[in-house]
Amino acid sequence: MGLIGAELSRVEPGVVEIILPYRVDLAQQHGYLHAGIVTTIADSACGYAAYSLMPPNSEVLSVEFKVNLLRPAKGERFVAVAEVVKAGKTLTVVCADVFGLDHEGKRELVATMLGTMICLS
Amino acid sequence: MGLIGAELSRVEPGVVEIILPYRVDLAQQHGYLHAGIVTTIADSACGYAAYSLMPPNSEVLSVEFKVNLLRPAKGERFVAVAEVVKAGKTLTVVCADVFGLDHEGKRELVATMLGTMICLS
Amino acid sequence: MGLIGAELSRVEPGVVEIILPYRVDLAQQHGYLHAGIVTTIADSACGYAAYSLMPPNSEVLSVEFKVNLLRPAKGERFVAVAEVVKAGKTLTVVCADVFGLDHEGKRELVATMLGTMICLS
Amino acid sequence: MGLIGAELSRVEPGVVEIILPYRVDLAQQHGYLHAGIVTTIADSACGYAAYSLMPPNSEVLSVEFKVNLLRPAKGERFVAVAEVVKAGKTLTVVCADVFGLDHEGKRELVATMLGTMICLS
Repeated sequence: MGLIGAELSRVEPGVVEIILPYRVDLAQQHGYLHAGIVTTIADSACGYAAYSLMPPNSEVLSVEFKVNLLRPAKGERFVAVAEVVKAGKTLTVVCADVFGLDHEGKRELVATMLGTMICLS
Repeated sequence: MGLIGAELSRVEPGVVEIILPYRVDLAQQHGYLHAGIVTTIADSACGYAAYSLMPPNSEVLSVEFKVNLLRPAKGERFVAVAEVVKAGKTLTVVCADVFGLDHEGKRELVATMLGTMICLS
Repeated sequence: MGLIGAELSRVEPGVVEIILPYRVDLAQQHGYLHAGIVTTIADSACGYAAYSLMPPNSEVLSVEFKVNLLRPAKGERFVAVAEVVKAGKTLTVVCADVFGLDHEGKRELVATMLGTMICLS
Repeated sequence: MGLIGAELSRVEPGVVEIILPYRVDLAQQHGYLHAGIVTTIADSACGYAAYSLMPPNSEVLSVEFKVNLLRPAKGERFVAVAEVVKAGKTLTVVCADVFGLDHEGKRELVATMLGTMICLS
């Protein structure tokens, strides 16, 4: 998160947003954000969203996730919005959307994730 | 790939390996390689493996992938090994395993991916 | 669809619902709807939702899907609601939720799917 | 499983095979095995494979799975072969391949699955 310059921009019970400003060194060969970076912020947002509903002293780990890359990830900034679908004692299922934002702040959906997080106590 | 220090270590038709030395700034809170980085090298290996079977002047994009994170990603180096499951004119399905290697080179499977790549000509 | 007694209950551009009444022979060992049946109605709803936005004389095929099974699939009836996330010329990404309905019609989410459909012309 | 005529044809620790003879009422509009049926036998094989490594008195449930449908599912019979990738105390990750067999017994891969099973004791 620190390496790529991402920041938590919203934390509510079960909902988390992460903001990432575009940087050339995070892009792939065509100048779009690398799929791995898109996935990293989506996964991090899912992890924090799950964690926000877990008991104190828990730890959260990603069990698995699936991501569909919908459009070239272009934008001046990117925001990953994660929301808990089902919180359980052991497993929590979370979905996340990643949007690219242009200079006017107009959002376009570039990827969507569905994943499973585990609570370790 | 450059940002994180990953390198192609093997390219054959339908099979690609990527090596990534461990670095502290690629780790998450417990010192293990971040899930996003594990995913990045797996996805890159899948993309190159699909690309290795595509006609000249093609481009490859990730449509979607799913990754299961099996163990804490610990190691001095990591290797992602991708292999094409089914190559098609438009879509190619690829799987990849990511291993952590200790100082003696002993491998432990840390993640496995199943993904779909598209050929753009 | 005929074999299991499922029926289309709603078809709009990009949104499709399928209803399935519970039957003992569709259940697994604990009396809940079998995961394969839950998946079948979700996948069918995704296929029809994608198809509803495709040009005439197209055919639709499932490329891949991922399903999270969230709760035991109990209910007198089940409804799968699919919605197109991103419609493309070749590939369409669709999500679906499957709900179990009790005798009062109260809904509980039992599964969620994220899948990719392809248009063949 | 009974409804569709599938049978366990091989059970070893961590490896399970399920056989399904083709039936017209299991086919979709083009005469190929319905994706939901392909998925059902793959998921069942994954569940049994995980279960084969669990302690006595356990129960197994599917947490999630992802399936790539690689070719039209044609054949006189179908076989799903599941193998445990990583067995854990709580979660077990399993992959499965589904093959169509022609009248000479020649196999063609039609689908591949990667899923997560949970052990309930």
